Amino acid sequence: MRVAVLGTGLIGTSVALALRERGAAVWLADEDPEAARLAANLGAGEPLPDGAHADVAVIAVPPAAVAATLAAAQARTLARCYTDVASVKQLPVAQARARGCDMTSYVPGHPLAGREKHGPAAARADLFLGRTWALCPAPETSEQAIAAVTALVRECGAVPMRTDAAAHDRWVALVSHAPHLVAAAMAARLEAAPPEALDLAGQGLRDVTRIAAGDTGLWTQILAANAGPVAEVLAAVAADLAEAARMLTDGEPKSVATLLDHGQAGVARIPGKHGGEPREFTVVQVVIRDEPGELARLFDAAGAAGVNIEDVRIEHSPGLPVGVAELSVRPAEAVTLLDALEAGGWPVRR
Amino acid sequence: MRVAVLGTGLIGTSVALALRERGAAVWLADEDPEAARLAANLGAGEPLPDGAHADVAVIAVPPAAVAATLAAAQARTLARCYTDVASVKQLPVAQARARGCDMTSYVPGHPLAGREKHGPAAARADLFLGRTWALCPAPETSEQAIAAVTALVRECGAVPMRTDAAAHDRWVALVSHAPHLVAAAMAARLEAAPPEALDLAGQGLRDVTRIAAGDTGLWTQILAANAGPVAEVLAAVAADLAEAARMLTDGEPKSVATLLDHGQAGVARIPGKHGGEPREFTVVQVVIRDEPGELARLFDAAGAAGVNIEDVRIEHSPGLPVGVAELSVRPAEAVTLLDALEAGGWPVRR
Repeated sequence: MRVAVLGTGLIGTSVALALRERGAAVWLADEDPEAARLAANLGAGEPLPDGAHADVAVIAVPPAAVAATLAAAQARTLARCYTDVASVKQLPVAQARARGCDMTSYVPGHPLAGREKHGPAAARADLFLGRTWALCPAPETSEQAIAAVTALVRECGAVPMRTDAAAHDRWVALVSHAPHLVAAAMAARLEAAPPEALDLAGQGLRDVTRIAAGDTGLWTQILAANAGPVAEVLAAVAADLAEAARMLTDGEPKSVATLLDHGQAGVARIPGKHGGEPREFTVVQVVIRDEPGELARLFDAAGAAGVNIEDVRIEHSPGLPVGVAELSVRPAEAVTLLDALEAGGWPVRR
Repeated sequence: MRVAVLGTGLIGTSVALALRERGAAVWLADEDPEAARLAANLGAGEPLPDGAHADVAVIAVPPAAVAATLAAAQARTLARCYTDVASVKQLPVAQARARGCDMTSYVPGHPLAGREKHGPAAARADLFLGRTWALCPAPETSEQAIAAVTALVRECGAVPMRTDAAAHDRWVALVSHAPHLVAAAMAARLEAAPPEALDLAGQGLRDVTRIAAGDTGLWTQILAANAGPVAEVLAAVAADLAEAARMLTDGEPKSVATLLDHGQAGVARIPGKHGGEPREFTVVQVVIRDEPGELARLFDAAGAAGVNIEDVRIEHSPGLPVGVAELSVRPAEAVTLLDALEAGGWPVRR
């Protein structure tokens, strides 16, 4: 497979690295020649030669630039088919159609993968491993183009999921774009908080606000390009919160319970680590010292007991040389783990 | 030290266990004799004898029951001083004063610790290790009472933080109670989402909504008892989100950038693992197999290299036998860790 990657940022360079590992020939181009050169130096491919013809061109540029890049690539018949990686899909599809692009060879795509860093230096060949990669062909997209891009997605280690652009945009508004702004709105309340208030912060606040640390420029672009669906979710969340505030002020806290119940039902629907319905894990808590080798010894003891740790969370408290590791395991394995940890000298509670 | 624990739920029993480990004599009582018996069987202490006199009585009952319990205990001169553990402070203080309780011997308190489980069986002696424990004495509270309760807090391994009840309630509204409802309101949007939308969910959504899985009954009580301060935060968050929705709908996405910037500034103020200003860690990502012993080998390699892993996050993808472990380390130790992992055969990217 010969692939041209147009745009060697985090996603484009990661696609290139993943495909190179699978033996594909990859050509690289970027508006910024330095970015393309850095990607090539990282082993992501060779500079795109004039007049080259690829099997697939991957357009890895910001959402608003996809259509123009596609039109220019098609004008020089760069590839037999084209895909993009923008995290919104209706905008590039509409703009491509408005520009008169050939829609039969264009398979709009979106890998559900990313990092908090940007640029080719942050790229990773394993970025797409096991991640969902949405493909949103238009009605006129040819089956050959869909098959070629689907094969590319699988070569990257991702799981293709076919849907339409409008549904895609509504879904990512709900599970990614709106949650980002909700986290930001909560985190914004902390900006002027007294330091003593922040001393009372626990893991819950950290989790709720973590993604609000993301890059403002990138997120403004994404939100602008998916404004309608995001606004719809935000308006509903805002209305629920305003209603909760009113009910609390009016002394009707029982009605707040309804919102809490809906929240509990919603969070239970998020698929667990292995996909599908959430799995119940038992959390084993163990006090650990904050020093090199402590976690190694802990996991050694678990591994020696044949227990597979499904998730780890470490909580450290200000000013103390110890912390608590919370190890998620299958319920049937919890006692084995507790025995192993106790035998290893760790204080556990049953 | 002789301590009476009134209310042997999660917090009361954990206090009792922590104090017993430090050699204190602990008496237990609960409205539900079964709960007190279970706590005693767990080694948390002895049943409270008639006419017993303690140094400190710890009132570990729901917020609305604190004042009545305090009044009854003072009427029989159960202890020389009293504290409670409710997660709101103005309500029990006002109710105690209204009942004519002796405020000189009462030190309102709140340990910033908890679990998602409840009852004496979920108690842990280490629950308060390194956690902040707010103490909110009234103007008339005696220094002797404050000193005795402060000593008890330290015996539990917690870090006492003295403040006043009104400030405490505003602060926990901001860093704990409001975030809980914000997470619930976002999670509630997922209740009716199509399964395909949830297939696109990433770690961000999981983190934002995690605490919404908490117990509705308990949280309704907490929110009702701190309604004013919580409503104030929620109304501000709701207004920001409604405004963001409006700006997106009106095609003014640039103004959304302001909210994102404030969110970024807010999240940066949350103290890091070791307290104080947030510390920057470098995240090293490594692909791991989903099987027993894999994490043990990984942490072994890190420990052998003398690298202290500050935090771990494990991401697994649906349907794949591998996942990605994200290891947070001090920036100066990242290269050492990468070398060690590579030498151990793990695929890493530099």
